[in-house]
Amino acid sequence: MINREMTEKGQNSSVIRELFEFGKQRKAVVGEDKVFDFSIGNPSVPCPAEITQCMSRLLEESDPVALHGYTSAAGDLNVRQAIASYMNEKYGLGAEAADIYMTAGAAASLTISLKSVACAGEEVIVFTPYFPEYKVFIENCGATAVEVPVAREDFQIDFEALNAAFSAKTAALIVNSPNNPTGAVLTAKTLKKLADFLRGKEKEYGREIYLISDEPYRELVYDGLALALPAQYYEDTLICYSYSKSLSLPGERIGYIMVNPKAHSRKLLFDTICGSGRSLGFVCAPSLLQQVVGQNQGLTSDIAAYEENRKLIYSMITDCGFEAIRPDGAFYLFVKAPSGDGNEFSERAKKYELLIVPSDSFGMEGYVRISYCVSKKQIEASAGAFRALAQSYGLQK
Amino acid sequence: MINREMTEKGQNSSVIRELFEFGKQRKAVVGEDKVFDFSIGNPSVPCPAEITQCMSRLLEESDPVALHGYTSAAGDLNVRQAIASYMNEKYGLGAEAADIYMTAGAAASLTISLKSVACAGEEVIVFTPYFPEYKVFIENCGATAVEVPVAREDFQIDFEALNAAFSAKTAALIVNSPNNPTGAVLTAKTLKKLADFLRGKEKEYGREIYLISDEPYRELVYDGLALALPAQYYEDTLICYSYSKSLSLPGERIGYIMVNPKAHSRKLLFDTICGSGRSLGFVCAPSLLQQVVGQNQGLTSDIAAYEENRKLIYSMITDCGFEAIRPDGAFYLFVKAPSGDGNEFSERAKKYELLIVPSDSFGMEGYVRISYCVSKKQIEASAGAFRALAQSYGLQK
Repeated sequence: MINREMTEKGQNSSVIRELFEFGKQRKAVVGEDKVFDFSIGNPSVPCPAEITQCMSRLLEESDPVALHGYTSAAGDLNVRQAIASYMNEKYGLGAEAADIYMTAGAAASLTISLKSVACAGEEVIVFTPYFPEYKVFIENCGATAVEVPVAREDFQIDFEALNAAFSAKTAALIVNSPNNPTGAVLTAKTLKKLADFLRGKEKEYGREIYLISDEPYRELVYDGLALALPAQYYEDTLICYSYSKSLSLPGERIGYIMVNPKAHSRKLLFDTICGSGRSLGFVCAPSLLQQVVGQNQGLTSDIAAYEENRKLIYSMITDCGFEAIRPDGAFYLFVKAPSGDGNEFSERAKKYELLIVPSDSFGMEGYVRISYCVSKKQIEASAGAFRALAQSYGLQK
Repeated sequence: MINREMTEKGQNSSVIRELFEFGKQRKAVVGEDKVFDFSIGNPSVPCPAEITQCMSRLLEESDPVALHGYTSAAGDLNVRQAIASYMNEKYGLGAEAADIYMTAGAAASLTISLKSVACAGEEVIVFTPYFPEYKVFIENCGATAVEVPVAREDFQIDFEALNAAFSAKTAALIVNSPNNPTGAVLTAKTLKKLADFLRGKEKEYGREIYLISDEPYRELVYDGLALALPAQYYEDTLICYSYSKSLSLPGERIGYIMVNPKAHSRKLLFDTICGSGRSLGFVCAPSLLQQVVGQNQGLTSDIAAYEENRKLIYSMITDCGFEAIRPDGAFYLFVKAPSGDGNEFSERAKKYELLIVPSDSFGMEGYVRISYCVSKKQIEASAGAFRALAQSYGLQK
């Protein structure tokens, strides 16, 4: 019988996608450069030239049967070794190849991780605002998403709210730092407190509680900030990584899950991840791309361009009189709706050909998300429209 | 809590993989050319040179942001159009781009299709012998696999057995022609009868019954045989395709699902597939590979090599006195165990450095599967070992 729950998930595509499609239609009517699309998180900076060269070289020099053949389900051993070495050097985790499971990107990392540590009927805590697909992925394993709002003053974790939401059914939590949609970064202090809190809960309930750390924006931190990594603080952490943003390869679907080597059930957890990947239909991560990322650990696209965009748009938006959170990472700016209604804000912005995503879809009212992974030119060209939008609220300074 | 069902699926990897790993170890001990590995279905023929050239050209000429960017969830529209046109020309299906959903290979095609048409508590019929991962994929959507043995004389469908296995809970059936592990091809007569049978069941139960046609070996048919396509006979068919075998790209994970345009709930079904893909964590199929297959419809690897292998190994095996089904397609030979025990046959073969897979893992006792997607040289070199194995059973003619 047709699975109507899936039909609904297929028909109600995300608000972000809808805005993006609306933008495409609008561009066809009024012109490509007259619509300012800040809706989608599609990297605008190309992948590094080294990545293209590496692919070309592999195609030229490798035996195609080996290059395009099945790897083991967890991925090519040399690639996993290269990732473990890089992560150990950078974050001192003490990981081995056996802790790394290559995936087809962040979404796969998350569905596989969730299916491994959350069973039907259990609960997974997400911190609002959050990437809306988390809910879809949590429901895929029969679990329920429990929303915990972050502290409004600094977008760190509100531990009182977290404690209140915690229950005997809580199997896991998802953190995402740097954050989509706010650009906020969890501090070392927050992560230390979270680790203490979770260890206390592990003791209280006599079982493991998993922290799923969704880290696609790990390299996108600004002002020379050193990112605090959840796995450095809490043992039972699964790192979900993707090269989509750091190498501008979102369509290629390549990433990994790393089991924290300090996890209490390290080996069992890894085996479980293998079982979940198998069940969901992931045979192995794309083989050519595995080689490419394995040979280019530490390489990133031109992140300075995003940092420049951030400065530009943050000044522009706040100069208009809007209130925004100064993002420490990722490529999103979270802006307060002057009317208090994010949907109204997004709708009104459309009249000025500005496409910005209402925060309701991220589980928090009253904001919009501006993706600034666009060209500098687009940001500059949108200044007049943002000014006019601000004026319509009587905001203009 | 750790999902122990997944742990088990991660720890009990398939017998095929185990044999393959055993072979690798054995080769390290006695030498690469002294072990005759017929265990795994990894294409030995390289992808066509046109595929490598096409990838290189795309990397050289395309804007990397577009080439490696997200496509729409269902895939790039031009690629889907190219596939629809090709399928219409070849099989007269009347498909449109809107019927095609690009996937990360056959396993993804199957898990997404199953989640779309089989709900928790329902049943999916599989014909034994069958690819063992079907069971894992069926269980992933909470449904149960119901095994129906094929007719032993010709490996076509046994309709009496099928009717007996059919129940009010039957949501779908999986067919796989050409077949893994037998190499058998379902005839037009069988498919016509199956379509009539299923239409009758649809009428009887007043709802749709889905036929999931797993077609990764579609191009691998021999003796100039024209393949009868299930979708040409039965309306409510989902075609699950992969380029793994036809283009020798198994590690790259690229394929598609096509909704039969004649399906009663054509549009609803497509939307449901989009929802399932989203839920399972497939954001889009790998973008570079989408372009590659879109531009190379109808191209295949050197299939003649497999046809030559088939002749060679079939003669060799039967000349030794073994009984085997002459395969019409795929690259597998299904051989009767002289003792009646496939496991014993496989174990004994190991002593002669022959790696062949017992049929028990395919849900049928008493046979072994020989994968002949290997080099001609390996087949020729294995002749002595097969002869000795036959002699050990007193079979040698």
